[in-house]
Amino acid sequence: MLDPNRLFPAESAARRICTKLFESIRDLPIISPHGHTEPRWFAENKPFPNPAALFIQPDHYIFRMLYSQGVPLEALGIPRVDDGQGADPREVWRIFARNYYLFRGTPTRLWLDYSFETLFGLTERLSPSNADEYYDLIQKKLDTPEFLPRALFERFKIEVLATTDPAYDSLEWHKQIQSSGWKGRVLPTFRPDAVIDADFHGFHENLQKLGQAAGEDVSSWNGYLKALRNRRAYFKQNGATATDHGHLTAQTADLSLPDAEQLYERIYSGNAQPGDAEIFQAQMLTEFAGMSVEDGLVMQIHPGSVRNYNPKVYEKFGRDKGADIPSATEYVRALRPLLSKYGNERNFTLILFTLDETTYSRELAPLAGHFPSVKLGPPWWFHDSPEGMMRFREMATETAGFYNTVGFNDDTRALLSIPARHDVARRVDCAFLARLVAEHRLDEDEAFEVARDLTVNLVRKAYKL
Amino acid sequence: MLDPNRLFPAESAARRICTKLFESIRDLPIISPHGHTEPRWFAENKPFPNPAALFIQPDHYIFRMLYSQGVPLEALGIPRVDDGQGADPREVWRIFARNYYLFRGTPTRLWLDYSFETLFGLTERLSPSNADEYYDLIQKKLDTPEFLPRALFERFKIEVLATTDPAYDSLEWHKQIQSSGWKGRVLPTFRPDAVIDADFHGFHENLQKLGQAAGEDVSSWNGYLKALRNRRAYFKQNGATATDHGHLTAQTADLSLPDAEQLYERIYSGNAQPGDAEIFQAQMLTEFAGMSVEDGLVMQIHPGSVRNYNPKVYEKFGRDKGADIPSATEYVRALRPLLSKYGNERNFTLILFTLDETTYSRELAPLAGHFPSVKLGPPWWFHDSPEGMMRFREMATETAGFYNTVGFNDDTRALLSIPARHDVARRVDCAFLARLVAEHRLDEDEAFEVARDLTVNLVRKAYKL
Amino acid sequence: MLDPNRLFPAESAARRICTKLFESIRDLPIISPHGHTEPRWFAENKPFPNPAALFIQPDHYIFRMLYSQGVPLEALGIPRVDDGQGADPREVWRIFARNYYLFRGTPTRLWLDYSFETLFGLTERLSPSNADEYYDLIQKKLDTPEFLPRALFERFKIEVLATTDPAYDSLEWHKQIQSSGWKGRVLPTFRPDAVIDADFHGFHENLQKLGQAAGEDVSSWNGYLKALRNRRAYFKQNGATATDHGHLTAQTADLSLPDAEQLYERIYSGNAQPGDAEIFQAQMLTEFAGMSVEDGLVMQIHPGSVRNYNPKVYEKFGRDKGADIPSATEYVRALRPLLSKYGNERNFTLILFTLDETTYSRELAPLAGHFPSVKLGPPWWFHDSPEGMMRFREMATETAGFYNTVGFNDDTRALLSIPARHDVARRVDCAFLARLVAEHRLDEDEAFEVARDLTVNLVRKAYKL
Repeated sequence: MLDPNRLFPAESAARRICTKLFESIRDLPIISPHGHTEPRWFAENKPFPNPAALFIQPDHYIFRMLYSQGVPLEALGIPRVDDGQGADPREVWRIFARNYYLFRGTPTRLWLDYSFETLFGLTERLSPSNADEYYDLIQKKLDTPEFLPRALFERFKIEVLATTDPAYDSLEWHKQIQSSGWKGRVLPTFRPDAVIDADFHGFHENLQKLGQAAGEDVSSWNGYLKALRNRRAYFKQNGATATDHGHLTAQTADLSLPDAEQLYERIYSGNAQPGDAEIFQAQMLTEFAGMSVEDGLVMQIHPGSVRNYNPKVYEKFGRDKGADIPSATEYVRALRPLLSKYGNERNFTLILFTLDETTYSRELAPLAGHFPSVKLGPPWWFHDSPEGMMRFREMATETAGFYNTVGFNDDTRALLSIPARHDVARRVDCAFLARLVAEHRLDEDEAFEVARDLTVNLVRKAYKL
Repeated sequence: MLDPNRLFPAESAARRICTKLFESIRDLPIISPHGHTEPRWFAENKPFPNPAALFIQPDHYIFRMLYSQGVPLEALGIPRVDDGQGADPREVWRIFARNYYLFRGTPTRLWLDYSFETLFGLTERLSPSNADEYYDLIQKKLDTPEFLPRALFERFKIEVLATTDPAYDSLEWHKQIQSSGWKGRVLPTFRPDAVIDADFHGFHENLQKLGQAAGEDVSSWNGYLKALRNRRAYFKQNGATATDHGHLTAQTADLSLPDAEQLYERIYSGNAQPGDAEIFQAQMLTEFAGMSVEDGLVMQIHPGSVRNYNPKVYEKFGRDKGADIPSATEYVRALRPLLSKYGNERNFTLILFTLDETTYSRELAPLAGHFPSVKLGPPWWFHDSPEGMMRFREMATETAGFYNTVGFNDDTRALLSIPARHDVARRVDCAFLARLVAEHRLDEDEAFEVARDLTVNLVRKAYKL
Repeated sequence: MLDPNRLFPAESAARRICTKLFESIRDLPIISPHGHTEPRWFAENKPFPNPAALFIQPDHYIFRMLYSQGVPLEALGIPRVDDGQGADPREVWRIFARNYYLFRGTPTRLWLDYSFETLFGLTERLSPSNADEYYDLIQKKLDTPEFLPRALFERFKIEVLATTDPAYDSLEWHKQIQSSGWKGRVLPTFRPDAVIDADFHGFHENLQKLGQAAGEDVSSWNGYLKALRNRRAYFKQNGATATDHGHLTAQTADLSLPDAEQLYERIYSGNAQPGDAEIFQAQMLTEFAGMSVEDGLVMQIHPGSVRNYNPKVYEKFGRDKGADIPSATEYVRALRPLLSKYGNERNFTLILFTLDETTYSRELAPLAGHFPSVKLGPPWWFHDSPEGMMRFREMATETAGFYNTVGFNDDTRALLSIPARHDVARRVDCAFLARLVAEHRLDEDEAFEVARDLTVNLVRKAYKL
């Protein structure tokens, strides 16, 4: 299934260059500074249960496509909020196989074929006729030691893997990994959305969890900030090098101390007025930037996703079920308060992501091409794809250069897709570089250096790994 | 003039694949589920009058370009609101020929060359020196039986052709076609803009026409809705499978019954307040979605065109004279009321179009890649072009796949351009698929299947033909 | 360093065509209708001081990239507002050489390599190890007669070069050039921003300068307009053929006379209310359009840059120091007042520029493809780059054609980059045309004609040169 030249330019001169570039970086270790795998997997090191639970149920890229073509989420065994799910995993797998043609032309298809062939030795395309054969073979392998989480981590040559963890998390699984003697480097990332976004489900309980975890009284603005600082220090102590912030917009604010205190008082007491939740989130981005200047944690902002857009799916199945939809995102005016205050700081790294590709050339590359603190995150989510990556390089490079970008994030919940996603990213970067060389816009010796920088050096530097 | 490899990739491996793909679909019938040809042509089956009346005067793609370079619309014989037009058709044709170079690099040029060569056997590029020869030869052919509307319909291998008709239309020409014994399948489409948009010229008279056509008293909200339901049933009975809605924005609403009643009362009585016209249109999109759930008519939304933008042209020449300009269009928040209510319904198909290409990857593909009801219409109007189609596939496919799209619409007022436009669309789709195959992102056997699906299967299914 | 095929398509058929096209236009004269070189250089004809002052300190493309990677502007000898700068030029050059890798993949790199090789015969890539050699050789050449401004102008085969000059400028350097007997054609451009934008530093003093230069009392609306008309006539008399307007947005207005008078009164007297400055700028665009209809000066609008975005850089170093950031720009509604009034005028040319590439296909090409007055300026600033130019042609041509565009602007402050920038533009245009020919979308004989039109004919016509 996997052609060695996949994703390389068809044109022969560029393909020749691309092949050489890719060979020079293919075997470099994987550095994964941003993702959503479970630390528990590596702490417990238990086998994955079955092919449906491994490939389909955790992967919203897959079940959103099936749902869009009329397959009920219940039939796929997606767990419901009110009770469990009862779908037979083999039946789920058969539905998936029958609908595999839907993924033609999508990155999901590339990732799946890569996993099937490189991990399970399956070289015939998945189809209704071989669905059971696939299922049985994958199930059998999952029960072997080579397919335990730690073994896969090592086999994938992962140098470091960052998870994403709530601000009040005890990091118990991370501690268990560290004390286990296993050498795999799995780091937490500080993600405070659930204690920042007043519309987040369970927000007030989350505040209490934060206070307890930090040993601080969060009933005042000052206590709240202290609790957050305290937790950041705890994360850092446990290996974190970065924070992550998923907001609806990129809006930031720079309120006076009295205004911020009163705003927090209203939020905390449940007396928020219209607009308070938005301005509070905006203020908190600037506060976190200030904390990053202090403690050196790298700040990531992921704005622009309208979460839980489909109320019927959200009510039945909860968060992260494929019903998040991007929307237009403004950065220039939104970030002005934060950047005016901290944008020129030496000890500050702000990595910006977007779901709105129009901002690459218009806003993000010009910001990254000026502010010492600003760097561009890789194409994210719906744009983590061959065409999406190519557009990113084409639209960002001429203004921001390569050196204001930070390498690749796999951003995945699906462990098996990690090497597949890095494989795609490396191939597309090489394809872009090969075109520049073939068009005499970059010298060949430079392209080799850039390819290596994009694969390992920029990510190590940007995320302080 | 027509190279057999036109629009295929220049690179030889991709071109080889493209050639094979195109050969496999070139001769499939034309299915045209959305357009603006006149049913009267096929009912009466009279010859077209002259080359200028056939090619230039009905085609705003052509006369807008000429106008932009200083040719007065009067000189082209565009009919004025106040009186007729007096331009000599041969003189109009000469102006056109003198300015034919203006169309270099535009799809109009591709469509024209295709018609000139395949229908009239003209193989020398149109120029001032052969303008009269062109004119005489086209005129001569138009007077032959082979160039009557029904003969052209058959020659083009049109399987089905949908027209666009006002909500109060008697559909007399459609009925005449049906009772004529001729087998050509020409279907109406229910287009209610003129009775929805309170700013539409003649809106209140249109409401009365609606009431009369439906035999309902439209002075109340309930009567108005009944009249619309009645007309939809009438259209369906006469072959319609779809409705079409051309709004300034994609805004939808979900008002309570009393609010909707009062709003309609203000609109109907001519006492609309600022914003009422907008919210009424928004509410009506949701009402129509509900009716589609009931009666199964496929719903098309075409938002984003600022109509009649040039007041001087509008005053003199009226609607549809090339002075419509697209503007930025938001879908995610705008469609939320409608999609929250009906987006998950099985018996509902909502086809979305756009003039704002930034929404392909940011909003439309994510919506179509999640909601069972939502499908993506093909690139529309200014984007019905080789580059526009390629951008659509590149930006939509990775998230929505091929199977949440609905094939091609020619959307034309120009009968002769129908096969030309389908020819371009088929070639560009094959070029896109050929690149995927050449880059080993799709298997060749799959590409053949997708090419056929994009050409005939998806359109038949989406439009229930 | 410079491959003769640079920027040509890698695919061999398209490259062959591209080579021929480029050969046919390579040696045509340079016409530069919009830029920011200093007329004083050509009036005085003195040598440029040193390599840093020539290449680095005037070029915000260069120092913004270095600043984004942590190089302080002080270390580059960028002059501060409060005092001069003390950096040693050779040391500045060494910093630049050490960081030359940052420009990989950027147009700046293409321009620099072109200048280094064609003007100084340097064929080894700039690096830390040859930095001093570069410096010495460039310094030596700058001291020779061949490198005086007028000699360079002639060597570059510049047919005409427009500068940009404030509305109250005496044009003394232009007059000195004209009376010097030197035949180089250097024309002023009327740029009134500093007397239109009430937030501009020194706005009220600028108004007085305007009044003095025009010999008019600018304390009334009528006097102010008279002063502007007077100055336009003076510019025209001294060779100007165009005006230029750099606004935050493209907003225009069409106020009644009393409203305009009162607005000006508030602005003039320093009693502006919130929003007044914006509406005043909007009104002035329409006023200037009316003056262009009268006097025939071509009107250019450059909207969409948020100026002086970084307050710390602005306070220390002033305007134009790389801290300008583009933002989303709306044209359709914004230009409606102006276009409704003057858009159909024969004696009016309005050239639109953008920093928001999404408007090419959505707004600008449809406007230029309809209004006789509207033409599209070339890709500007951050988009004056190979990918940016290619996107412009791909997104604008299918709707606006080639003949509603106006050739290339180098828009530069850096004299040496002029031929380099025109070289890139010519190559990219040929690459685009070659692809159209290779894909049989344009006949080869037509491509030669279009290439020449894009290089010299369209610019001469649009700017009335």
